[in-house]
Amino acid sequence: MAKLPIPYKIYLSEEEIPKQWYNLNAAMKTKHAPFLNPATLQPCSADDLKPVFCDDCVGQEMNMSDLYIDIPEDIRSFYKMYRPSPLVRAYCLEKVLDTPAEIYYKFEGNNTSGSHKLNSAAAQAYYAKKQGLKSVTTETGAGQWGTALSMACSYYGLDLIVYMVKVSSEQKPYRKEVMRTYGAQVIPSPSDTTEAGRKILKEFPGTGGSLGCAISEAVEKAVTSDSCRYVLGSVLDHVLLHQSVIGLESKAALDKYGVEVDTVIGCVGGGSNFGGLIAPFMGDKIAGKNDIEFIGVEPASCPSLTRGKFVYDFCDSAKITPLAKMYTLGCGFMPAPNHAGGLRYHGMSPIVSELYHQGLMRAVAVEQSKVFEAAEMFARIEGILPAPESSHAIRVAIDEAIKCRETGKKKKILFGLTGTGYFDMAAYKQYNDGTMTDYIPTDADLAKGFASIPDIPQNK
Amino acid sequence: MAKLPIPYKIYLSEEEIPKQWYNLNAAMKTKHAPFLNPATLQPCSADDLKPVFCDDCVGQEMNMSDLYIDIPEDIRSFYKMYRPSPLVRAYCLEKVLDTPAEIYYKFEGNNTSGSHKLNSAAAQAYYAKKQGLKSVTTETGAGQWGTALSMACSYYGLDLIVYMVKVSSEQKPYRKEVMRTYGAQVIPSPSDTTEAGRKILKEFPGTGGSLGCAISEAVEKAVTSDSCRYVLGSVLDHVLLHQSVIGLESKAALDKYGVEVDTVIGCVGGGSNFGGLIAPFMGDKIAGKNDIEFIGVEPASCPSLTRGKFVYDFCDSAKITPLAKMYTLGCGFMPAPNHAGGLRYHGMSPIVSELYHQGLMRAVAVEQSKVFEAAEMFARIEGILPAPESSHAIRVAIDEAIKCRETGKKKKILFGLTGTGYFDMAAYKQYNDGTMTDYIPTDADLAKGFASIPDIPQNK
Repeated sequence: MAKLPIPYKIYLSEEEIPKQWYNLNAAMKTKHAPFLNPATLQPCSADDLKPVFCDDCVGQEMNMSDLYIDIPEDIRSFYKMYRPSPLVRAYCLEKVLDTPAEIYYKFEGNNTSGSHKLNSAAAQAYYAKKQGLKSVTTETGAGQWGTALSMACSYYGLDLIVYMVKVSSEQKPYRKEVMRTYGAQVIPSPSDTTEAGRKILKEFPGTGGSLGCAISEAVEKAVTSDSCRYVLGSVLDHVLLHQSVIGLESKAALDKYGVEVDTVIGCVGGGSNFGGLIAPFMGDKIAGKNDIEFIGVEPASCPSLTRGKFVYDFCDSAKITPLAKMYTLGCGFMPAPNHAGGLRYHGMSPIVSELYHQGLMRAVAVEQSKVFEAAEMFARIEGILPAPESSHAIRVAIDEAIKCRETGKKKKILFGLTGTGYFDMAAYKQYNDGTMTDYIPTDADLAKGFASIPDIPQNK
Repeated sequence: MAKLPIPYKIYLSEEEIPKQWYNLNAAMKTKHAPFLNPATLQPCSADDLKPVFCDDCVGQEMNMSDLYIDIPEDIRSFYKMYRPSPLVRAYCLEKVLDTPAEIYYKFEGNNTSGSHKLNSAAAQAYYAKKQGLKSVTTETGAGQWGTALSMACSYYGLDLIVYMVKVSSEQKPYRKEVMRTYGAQVIPSPSDTTEAGRKILKEFPGTGGSLGCAISEAVEKAVTSDSCRYVLGSVLDHVLLHQSVIGLESKAALDKYGVEVDTVIGCVGGGSNFGGLIAPFMGDKIAGKNDIEFIGVEPASCPSLTRGKFVYDFCDSAKITPLAKMYTLGCGFMPAPNHAGGLRYHGMSPIVSELYHQGLMRAVAVEQSKVFEAAEMFARIEGILPAPESSHAIRVAIDEAIKCRETGKKKKILFGLTGTGYFDMAAYKQYNDGTMTDYIPTDADLAKGFASIPDIPQNK
């Protein structure tokens, strides 16, 4: 059969927006270890999680058996505002790199939140509304997640409080303004609106805050009200589930043109975009249907997969969350200033961690200046100014394509372009000015972080 | 024949990107008056214009007879990076407004330049390259045009100097940074790189500059080099020609679903997006094939159509350009601070001016606070954070849809959503803080501007 010529952008129709999410948990032969209740060190039950998260999300979090989970029609309606997202054939980049490789990228940045985060924000806001809740809380650092959730809450008519790391809210006033435009209340953290915040303020007056502290405030605010829950933008299984629309759409678009990819590349911070992108491809690999190479790309400044430990650790630095078995640098690890804000997380999604542990994927750590070099090249050639986070995947996709030029291999490469960098121009300025520096933690730096890993029997 | 259900977003295929631009000049029974050489007050010849603009653009500027003009395949390849742009059915907005009207918008903001400006930037950069030029110059105020041209010049391998109004380059450092990322040299104007700039600096040390001064510098830089030309982002006929892809794609998408619009709405500053959006629809109206109502929306602070004079005037405030017959507030008119940066132009495209003069369209002036009210509403309901400029069209589209609710009329409304507001959050902040003010020039203010209109026989 003659193959169709592949356009620059493959758009599915609205009817082809997935009707079900893909649950990678169900596809995995060995499941990841369960979350532990920090008080009892026993596996978390649904009841342990329900005061914090929406009931439906808890159900999805614990679901290890259903490979496909229906997407409610209301969420699909929301998705229609900005999905299907385009799968782009990077013809221009291929030409400039003079590579025999075919490069494809799934572009998730063409929505006002500027990233893939909206896929899970829409779902979590919907479930909160369905449960009759009045409001949700969350934290945000770089701001992409807060923006996405603001849009979703505005759509579903939920009040939203975003605890934004104070120093970040001062450095990124425009991010804050987008959230306000969508009606969210943005509170610089630490704040005097919670016990946790007041405690920190008393102990460290004048502190710029941290993500750990912002999480503590958001969770406290949620659990102290019956009509409020907390929502999280990455790491958890149900977030990866929602993000599987990325992979499902990518696969449908590639199937339409008979393209079988050899390599799938994504950046990894908490792991939700990567987990979503690879989901159906990885499921097929586990089932013996393909031999795709999966590559997670992390910043060299925060190398949880490539240099971390696979142990139980807290998901936050304030040590109030359940314990997850994951690759971690230790919940007390403080990554150096780095512009890949969304990737500066000490741990990693338990699903992604387990896949890595089983050898089903590999990981690469890249330095910031190399990432921005790739970002600028990509912007000039493909016409999209990428987010620093996304540019980690671009870096490795380019490197792989260059290898193909050398070996003559006609690899088919797919990578996830998670978002745009319009609110990251301060970082681009540093790169353009030649003042950007790299940072790689020493073994001694890492040892300090590892010391914060809880000393529990499961970690012996 | 049963009509197809209309999706949220109508995407044409890449093959359906127009192969020809639509030349509104050829469709007009009475053409607009010719440009005048300011030295002789005689109609400009091609030779008058060629030292300033690329040869092919001059040819298009003077073409009053060919209704369709071929789009070179190279430009279509560039267009494929971000076109076709979606035509969106605003189902969510219709529902919230509880209107029987159908609302459609053509969204031109899904590219890194963030606006429709890229359509003409691509064409003008291509023609400059084809002519063997090494570089081009331009000026930018709000920054959208400079960004678009930076992207196009990077793609075609042309050097670019952007004279950016000094106060704007200081207020919008991130806009400047996007241009630098695309390799453009951004020079705050006035500068010491030109005679014009040095003169202004000597006369007004410490001035923040003006668009008129930036134009003077860019033109001087271009005409004093054989391998360089000047490019302009609006007003001129060839710019409107390039922007006709907006209207052609809109019409093709609507035709596919059998939708005949009753009203077409666009914001007007220099007139290029509006002229491009309406082009094929207006051509049909002139030919008696439809009775569409066209509405140009301008800021009340800079009301060239609704309160200006239809006379010959300079296109710039430094009085160095040819004279155009247009609606103008006088080339010396200084609009008050206002966030619709891209619409703060004293004049108006000669084509749009002539259409307005002939009664083929109407114009509405709207106040800034009402515009931002519509912008925020639209962002929350349709999920796209619009540029302040684009939001002028949104305001009137909403007003028209509300009228339909009152009259019960099932009007089909199309408006142009020219771009996104990611670099305009300072304006949104003012709106969110409640500190935004409106400004409407008094008759005395206007009289001052009118006094700057040249006193030539053609204006008697």
